[in-house]
Amino acid sequence: MQNPLSQKAIGVFDSGIGGLTVLKEISDRLPREDLIYLGDTARLPYGNKSRETVTRYSLENARFLIQRGVKLIVVACNTASAFSLQELQTAVEVPVIGVLLPGAQAALAVTRSEEIGVIGTEGTVASASYLRAIQHLKPAARVWALACPLFVPLVEEGWLENEITEAVVKRYLSPLLTTPMDTLILGCTHYPLLKPVIRRVVGPSIHLVDSAEETAKAVAALLQEKEILNSSDRSGNQTLFVTDAPERFKQVGKGILKRSLEDTILVSV
Amino acid sequence: MQNPLSQKAIGVFDSGIGGLTVLKEISDRLPREDLIYLGDTARLPYGNKSRETVTRYSLENARFLIQRGVKLIVVACNTASAFSLQELQTAVEVPVIGVLLPGAQAALAVTRSEEIGVIGTEGTVASASYLRAIQHLKPAARVWALACPLFVPLVEEGWLENEITEAVVKRYLSPLLTTPMDTLILGCTHYPLLKPVIRRVVGPSIHLVDSAEETAKAVAALLQEKEILNSSDRSGNQTLFVTDAPERFKQVGKGILKRSLEDTILVSV
Repeated sequence: MQNPLSQKAIGVFDSGIGGLTVLKEISDRLPREDLIYLGDTARLPYGNKSRETVTRYSLENARFLIQRGVKLIVVACNTASAFSLQELQTAVEVPVIGVLLPGAQAALAVTRSEEIGVIGTEGTVASASYLRAIQHLKPAARVWALACPLFVPLVEEGWLENEITEAVVKRYLSPLLTTPMDTLILGCTHYPLLKPVIRRVVGPSIHLVDSAEETAKAVAALLQEKEILNSSDRSGNQTLFVTDAPERFKQVGKGILKRSLEDTILVSV
Repeated sequence: MQNPLSQKAIGVFDSGIGGLTVLKEISDRLPREDLIYLGDTARLPYGNKSRETVTRYSLENARFLIQRGVKLIVVACNTASAFSLQELQTAVEVPVIGVLLPGAQAALAVTRSEEIGVIGTEGTVASASYLRAIQHLKPAARVWALACPLFVPLVEEGWLENEITEAVVKRYLSPLLTTPMDTLILGCTHYPLLKPVIRRVVGPSIHLVDSAEETAKAVAALLQEKEILNSSDRSGNQTLFVTDAPERFKQVGKGILKRSLEDTILVSV
């Protein structure tokens, strides 16, 4: 007999649009799952705000998803994962997965030198959460973490490939390129959209770890382990909520999900 | 006999740190006035959010200042001035001054060609508020308005003078330089911090209008007209409130106010 939970949706939240990279990966890997996404666009970004404020917003987002009856919550934002995962796991009854641990595990799986670079928002870097996660799994590993505050505004502006973006990426990453890292974690869900430029700047020999991909794998593994994968024979539905300005979200988001986002719903949480 | 209102403070709010450029100008011009500043750093920026959301936040900010007994409110944010000034003026009993009208008036006072450029956030530009304000005062004037979404993140990052900032300024402003404008309104309270770079890019012949300066003049004129200028013989006090992350605010803000901001207080509104 199938677990009744298996029919329920997976809830995903982010400060805004970056988490759609995670939604896309989950949907590609688990096409039968219903997905509910919440982008907290009224209060974005989270990356330059304090632990207390990010945790307050995250708890409100999680409560919104719980009210929609989800079986699992994915925190598709590195800053919220870094600051608030434990509080979320204590506060709600369903499992909560962040993007941070899957990224840390994937980096450790590919690194040879055990020298790992991490780029992220100011909040993620200041929290030292990647450092703790990586050294908890492998105490000998060394972590080189760097905040890149302009990457999110560049992505939001849609400047993914021009010469200014390349200059900004070079400027931030040059100090990292002097370290012995052989693996670089893209520690913010916006950053995969800058992957081509980052690849050009770091060269071909560095492993780039994309937390969106890794998180989707972790979600699949958890649902399988708990035997709550959706085994129906139809495609899953996606329901998208934002807390502000759906027009902007639709415009940028359709480039990520490769479909129209006209069905996005405005809510307050 | 002095009007009892004259002893009360002037309230100033902004989404974050940009409004300190307005606070500084008011303080330089009216050194005896007590000033209360509120930076809504928990929800910044306002520039890419909707009219409804910006108005909701602005009303909450105004209520906070009213509870502190201010005699006048200055909306030191162009986006909030563009979207929410009328609602604010209806909602509170004290006069409310925005940064938009003083900038429009100053531009009309210096332009010869009556061709006026405006740069601002997406919200300010989309609202067409400068266009309406300028054409209401002078129907023959023409307005060339352009959004520059990366200017605020560059200022927040402290990149005021490097070659990347110059490249970004050039890229945004090049289309404006093909217009017949002879005057350019810096329609966001962050932008005065980029004035040296903007001046280099637009050349020496364009008038740059800084709304911070113009707003301080308007505040002085209004207090004088209502006979509620503070005529005490002491220097005014400044009280600074923020809704999140006071450390970051202190660090960037001391460059604007040219003093330590260690006395900044964290509040929720």
